[in-house]
Amino acid sequence: MERQNRVTLRNVAAHAGVDPSTASRALNPETRSLVRDETVQRVLAVAAKLGYRPDSLARGLKTNRTFTIGVLIPDLTNPLFPPIVRGIEDGLGETDYAVILGNTDNDPEKARSVAGAMLDRRVDALVLATVLRRDPLVAELLGRGIPVVTVNRFVEEPPTSSVTADDHVGVRLAVEHLASLGHERIGFVGGPVDISTGFARHQSFQAAMQDFGLVPDPDLVVAAEWFGEEPGAKGFAYVWERRPDMSAVVAANDLIALGCYDVIFDRGLKVGFDVSVVGFNDMPFADRVSPPLTTIRIPHYQMGVKCAELVLRQLAGSDREVSTIRLAPSLVVRRSTGPVS
Amino acid sequence: MERQNRVTLRNVAAHAGVDPSTASRALNPETRSLVRDETVQRVLAVAAKLGYRPDSLARGLKTNRTFTIGVLIPDLTNPLFPPIVRGIEDGLGETDYAVILGNTDNDPEKARSVAGAMLDRRVDALVLATVLRRDPLVAELLGRGIPVVTVNRFVEEPPTSSVTADDHVGVRLAVEHLASLGHERIGFVGGPVDISTGFARHQSFQAAMQDFGLVPDPDLVVAAEWFGEEPGAKGFAYVWERRPDMSAVVAANDLIALGCYDVIFDRGLKVGFDVSVVGFNDMPFADRVSPPLTTIRIPHYQMGVKCAELVLRQLAGSDREVSTIRLAPSLVVRRSTGPVS
Repeated sequence: MERQNRVTLRNVAAHAGVDPSTASRALNPETRSLVRDETVQRVLAVAAKLGYRPDSLARGLKTNRTFTIGVLIPDLTNPLFPPIVRGIEDGLGETDYAVILGNTDNDPEKARSVAGAMLDRRVDALVLATVLRRDPLVAELLGRGIPVVTVNRFVEEPPTSSVTADDHVGVRLAVEHLASLGHERIGFVGGPVDISTGFARHQSFQAAMQDFGLVPDPDLVVAAEWFGEEPGAKGFAYVWERRPDMSAVVAANDLIALGCYDVIFDRGLKVGFDVSVVGFNDMPFADRVSPPLTTIRIPHYQMGVKCAELVLRQLAGSDREVSTIRLAPSLVVRRSTGPVS
Repeated sequence: MERQNRVTLRNVAAHAGVDPSTASRALNPETRSLVRDETVQRVLAVAAKLGYRPDSLARGLKTNRTFTIGVLIPDLTNPLFPPIVRGIEDGLGETDYAVILGNTDNDPEKARSVAGAMLDRRVDALVLATVLRRDPLVAELLGRGIPVVTVNRFVEEPPTSSVTADDHVGVRLAVEHLASLGHERIGFVGGPVDISTGFARHQSFQAAMQDFGLVPDPDLVVAAEWFGEEPGAKGFAYVWERRPDMSAVVAANDLIALGCYDVIFDRGLKVGFDVSVVGFNDMPFADRVSPPLTTIRIPHYQMGVKCAELVLRQLAGSDREVSTIRLAPSLVVRRSTGPVS
């Protein structure tokens, strides 16, 4: 980790008694086979002894790569995203690639400007956890030859590699659980429908209700402004005012579910007794809230790891095959749901 | 955000009818005054029209900067760190600097290897949220001319710029609160004492007890193996076995406090009635756990913002003045504490 008096390729070559181009080939695993084995061994030994490390800036100019991947997320302090980011970082693991993060606060203009700044830095690929269902930024990036993978959310077009959860299965598990407890008047506080997760969970709720022989009541379905506690509370209050006989609610994510909790408490009622609540995500500490939240678990860390794999595959290949990975959710039953009273 | 057919400085110069060095000076705010005003205006207009953006790789080679700052944290999925990282990123805001994150899992060997990889990438500075009180890595980095700022934790030597919370004031607030509720047999489940936060909170507990005329009982003080729920539970169980008459406990962070909760519940007792618990940090969702946690609030986001300021100041100046910033904590009373029973 020398900064001053950096050991150069030239130093290694001189000490090994070879010319710099030979030393360079010997040090690069991809070109090593072009050099005689005993020369490779000598160069590697000298490089290790001198503490040589390749100059990534110079290498970047030569290979036209910066070995950085830009990752755009709505907000790192939303508990959903740290496990995804950590998964991406661990998935890149021993490679030379590192992540540069950008927060967009769900503002498409900010997303555009952050992506622009990342391209100015010549990131080799972009991971977008911020896309809308119809997001002109994605088409633009792909059109310019930037490898793009979306994570958690997907775009409807153009075809783009993505790693997401199977929202349909997830919402079905939630409705099935409530139906098995005898609930019929089940509400849904969804997320914004211009985002794939908000849209798919909304659609899936309607479908699942019908699958279990229940009638989705339009008065009991609302889309929260965004995936947060406050809009969740507002959404729940809205359906509750119109249908105070509802006995259960499916929330499109755990933060919305906590917003539902607040309104239920405010009405002097008990979550899990008077109204059952199912969340979505199983975010950290969902097991610690009061009452512990029944929710749909999404393997977010694994989502990040898979996302890194897709990015690396795109960067390794010359073709740009589109891969979509959907991870299976599971139901986690805690104390926010109970039999219909 | 062009990738292919990138507009170069040469293109801008040709279109503006000046030579590349003049165009370069006109585009750089720091050298702009050396160019005639009407030329500057013409070059800027051409650059805007062509969509020119500076080539950061080439600029990096020229200025010997990569405009990246390496940030080492123990683990992004520990809820303490996202607000700090977000604060650093927002603090860098409109500058050209971006953050590269590395997780060390509190393993000094991993910290060393991640820092090495970052130096290979030629980060311009390092922010360390991972330091031990005596951490040879810091001396090594400083000795090699790398600007270093530690955040949340500090090193005892060599003198290093840092942004931390005032642990002494924080622990004093916790003990004062419990004393005012009539508690006397107060336990302390601390963190590892090879970390500044663990050490300072331990020392401060002893001092605060004496300040309030209480006797710190050695049987009631223990250091958890690390700042997590499980070691917190183990620590609390240890003191509880020896002094089941304790009526309150100060935990060195909120995760340790949640570990104390678990043991108290397991014994069939009620947090806030049978045993009062005070945490430290006011991490996200500390207000949502059951019962809501009384804790010491540390402004972590602000800590990150201040940290970015220190880094930028170091990068701007030629001297390496050491600055230490201590942020004031505050007491947040919720339902995990009550009068001694």
